[in-house]
Amino acid sequence: MRRLTAVLSMMVAGQMLYAQEKINLEVINKIKAEGTTNSQVMDIAFHLTDANGPRLAGSPGYTKAANWAKESLGKWGLVNNALEPWGEFGKGWELKKSYVAMTAPYYKPLIAYPKTWTKSTAGLKNAEVLLIEATDSVGLTRYAGKLKGKVLLIYKGDTLRQTFKADAVRYTDEELNKMAAAQPQAQQQRRPQVDPNDTAAVRRMREQMARQGGGAAQVLNILKTMAEKEGAIALLSSSPRGHDGTLFVQGGGSYAVGAPDNFLDIMLTHEDYLSMCRLIKKGVPVKLDVDVKSEFNQKDTKGYNVVAEIKGTDPSLKDEIVMLGGHLDSWQSATGATDNAAGSAVMLEAVRILKALNIQPRRTIRIALWGGEEEGLLGSRGYVKNHFADPATMELKPEHAKFSSYFNIDNGTGKVRGIYLQGNDKVKDIFTQWLTPFHDMGAKWVTISNTGGTDHQSFDAVGLPGFQFIQDPIEYNTRTHHTNMDSYDHLIPEDLQQISVIVASFVYNAAMRDEKLPRKELPQPRGAGGRGF
Amino acid sequence: MRRLTAVLSMMVAGQMLYAQEKINLEVINKIKAEGTTNSQVMDIAFHLTDANGPRLAGSPGYTKAANWAKESLGKWGLVNNALEPWGEFGKGWELKKSYVAMTAPYYKPLIAYPKTWTKSTAGLKNAEVLLIEATDSVGLTRYAGKLKGKVLLIYKGDTLRQTFKADAVRYTDEELNKMAAAQPQAQQQRRPQVDPNDTAAVRRMREQMARQGGGAAQVLNILKTMAEKEGAIALLSSSPRGHDGTLFVQGGGSYAVGAPDNFLDIMLTHEDYLSMCRLIKKGVPVKLDVDVKSEFNQKDTKGYNVVAEIKGTDPSLKDEIVMLGGHLDSWQSATGATDNAAGSAVMLEAVRILKALNIQPRRTIRIALWGGEEEGLLGSRGYVKNHFADPATMELKPEHAKFSSYFNIDNGTGKVRGIYLQGNDKVKDIFTQWLTPFHDMGAKWVTISNTGGTDHQSFDAVGLPGFQFIQDPIEYNTRTHHTNMDSYDHLIPEDLQQISVIVASFVYNAAMRDEKLPRKELPQPRGAGGRGF
Repeated sequence: MRRLTAVLSMMVAGQMLYAQEKINLEVINKIKAEGTTNSQVMDIAFHLTDANGPRLAGSPGYTKAANWAKESLGKWGLVNNALEPWGEFGKGWELKKSYVAMTAPYYKPLIAYPKTWTKSTAGLKNAEVLLIEATDSVGLTRYAGKLKGKVLLIYKGDTLRQTFKADAVRYTDEELNKMAAAQPQAQQQRRPQVDPNDTAAVRRMREQMARQGGGAAQVLNILKTMAEKEGAIALLSSSPRGHDGTLFVQGGGSYAVGAPDNFLDIMLTHEDYLSMCRLIKKGVPVKLDVDVKSEFNQKDTKGYNVVAEIKGTDPSLKDEIVMLGGHLDSWQSATGATDNAAGSAVMLEAVRILKALNIQPRRTIRIALWGGEEEGLLGSRGYVKNHFADPATMELKPEHAKFSSYFNIDNGTGKVRGIYLQGNDKVKDIFTQWLTPFHDMGAKWVTISNTGGTDHQSFDAVGLPGFQFIQDPIEYNTRTHHTNMDSYDHLIPEDLQQISVIVASFVYNAAMRDEKLPRKELPQPRGAGGRGF
Repeated sequence: MRRLTAVLSMMVAGQMLYAQEKINLEVINKIKAEGTTNSQVMDIAFHLTDANGPRLAGSPGYTKAANWAKESLGKWGLVNNALEPWGEFGKGWELKKSYVAMTAPYYKPLIAYPKTWTKSTAGLKNAEVLLIEATDSVGLTRYAGKLKGKVLLIYKGDTLRQTFKADAVRYTDEELNKMAAAQPQAQQQRRPQVDPNDTAAVRRMREQMARQGGGAAQVLNILKTMAEKEGAIALLSSSPRGHDGTLFVQGGGSYAVGAPDNFLDIMLTHEDYLSMCRLIKKGVPVKLDVDVKSEFNQKDTKGYNVVAEIKGTDPSLKDEIVMLGGHLDSWQSATGATDNAAGSAVMLEAVRILKALNIQPRRTIRIALWGGEEEGLLGSRGYVKNHFADPATMELKPEHAKFSSYFNIDNGTGKVRGIYLQGNDKVKDIFTQWLTPFHDMGAKWVTISNTGGTDHQSFDAVGLPGFQFIQDPIEYNTRTHHTNMDSYDHLIPEDLQQISVIVASFVYNAAMRDEKLPRKELPQPRGAGGRGF
């Protein structure tokens, strides 16, 4: 942990120009003590990961974790704890067996994981791997009629290149100072930038590319249709990011009720994938054993968020709410420890801390753990639409006026270094002061910038103050985000304790403040088809 | 690649005090051109890895690779190419199937690889995992009678900790300067230090610990005996080094002819291992599917090296030999790309280059690719004993007097930065001059130090000049050395080209030099039981 003294005195001097925030340091210190000495955040994380399994939206694992969270919230004394439906999700999916091995030219067990919502092999198949070399639909025609019983491998001529960079990193002061020095951008204030981690955004770009008839995506879509029609066994995938045994693996197609089950698409390590490309390219036949069993579930196709409250005690403010949350759902190939059991665990721990201290907040504090985030912030968007406003029409519901702010965590296990203002300059001085007690824990930077790809955007989209904290990246982009390695051991206990304490304090400050947090101007309605993030 | 000019002028000045080596820069430049413009080193590596599979000593994969190398050497015009037996090895072993998955409390395919020379499950077994918490033999008694049909997991309370260091690194000039500044140590000259990478040495230390009744090793041995007797299914293992999907996995017991097949011991990632420890410790039952099939092979229990020659042409020197080599055998869980297809490929490429240039060496150049290195430098020790001398008696055979030097590569894919002198100060100036044409390729450091753990030690042990080059570590210690990730894509083509060129040049210089390379004093006989390295 770095101690940051150089800039501090300047910042404190700067604060004098603004209104002074009342900060109850006695309570903050109690929060720090409870969140470190009596921390339960790793025990909570254990229950959401190891003990629970993957928490894919719509899957039994998600429901199990949501119920555990709801019951725990009740035990800690929160009220109105519930699984609240946010709307229609789609099909559940769960992996029941996955065995993939090379059997020729020699035996090798492969590190493999099927993409979610893809279907089974109906037992063990031994199949030849067919190398597909095509850059457009015309190139694919020469494979027509040859796919039956084959495993398909689209040629890639890559080789891996070591990065010579550490997988796990923390932000340097220099990087954080640069973020803090960013200027507001007119465009940014209107619309968040597309974040590469926003799978919904990425999917839409991919769909757009496919509609435009663009290369690889088009080839892939046509090939899958041919494969399904001719009776191929499976398609193999890889990503240059997925090496050393780490797989980046997400969805393999539609999860909508009524949509046909997707063709089996199996993610491999880039090493195994490229090895097979080289072998077949050089004329060596490759065969695989593939035995995949997945289970689709349509018993309950609704999506759910977990919600619970600590009721406000000030007669004039108790109907106003301060929210905290993070998404509870995950991808399927691990237990989603950093994405986002971490965020869920620290939010649960934050309210546990506040209840353990028996704080009497003036406003109501409401925790929400979202479902369906990975498929496009579905849980939080549904919730915001049901409770506050539909961004399409911007017709405001009564709760919109009673809302103070929402605080989100969804960037892994790394400790908080500060907060993104989402272009809301009016909260800059407030948050700068709120961070003062945490300078010695490494958190002090405030940036006007947006960050995208997660649930605070659902609030921001209807003009409500929604914020995400700046977190140290650790291994998020290299090893854990949407990978088979996103498991309990990739969490850092001290960092999660620090986050819990800071979140609990921010929520406490927001609940005790005389005024709600200041807002940006209301956005324009986006229209029925509009999707701004 | 770093350019090193600062120290160069000083070193060149220093050389003037010594005898001037004749360096044929015209030939060196031709070697550089052939080894870069026409390099075949990656094609050779492909054949030893992707196309061949693992090359465990005694396995069909080793034999296949050895025959491919022998035939390629013949095609390039080398003579006396042969698979030369070096002595008795033991049992071959090959993995035919490995499927390991957690089935309760939820389904998860596990990244797993059985240790070599361990036996099969006889089909698919679904078994409960039994957590063993014992620090000594007394602690184990409470598990007596409870092991039948169980998979055994010895409790570890670790958690993973990110290193925040890069997996792949190169030596800095500072590190290399420090190595070059090392002073000869009296002890070093007598006996190489134990190297942590020397599996034979490590095994002996472990055996010694076991004999002394020391904790973990003793518990493990007793547990395996109990497991075998009671009919347990398998034992699980892990290592803190094995994370993110990378497994460090080696042998699981004796490969001696007549030894009983070893109890099944399966290496898992540390994440999966620790997750199961936590689950069972907190009272959650864990079940696994295990289906392992391995095949032992005792048709030919001898060990073999691959040898071939470029005959010397100087009538007075052609019976003298210069050798180059590296071990061809590997561990089983990958194709041993950096350990040591890399070393084998560059040695093959080096002699290919020399033949392609039709050089006429004064001395005979002999390549040797060793078998059984991973089990204790067996192939090279056997070869040295058969051809030169037995270190136990130090009775010298006639070839001992005709030997110039041996050059070895066995530290992965990283380019050459210099050479270890193995305590032989008399070659310092020679090698310093030989490296001069390669300063612009990053190789210039000479250190008096020893390096251990590989086949040059077999020569050094009988007083013959045997040398290993200093190589950049790259991912050797973090990702590839004895792992399931030691595959083709972890090789760096430019580095292997550089090594090939430097080795070919060193061998050429040694073959053309008026004198053989100077030797250290002959070591004392070690006695029949003595094992110095």
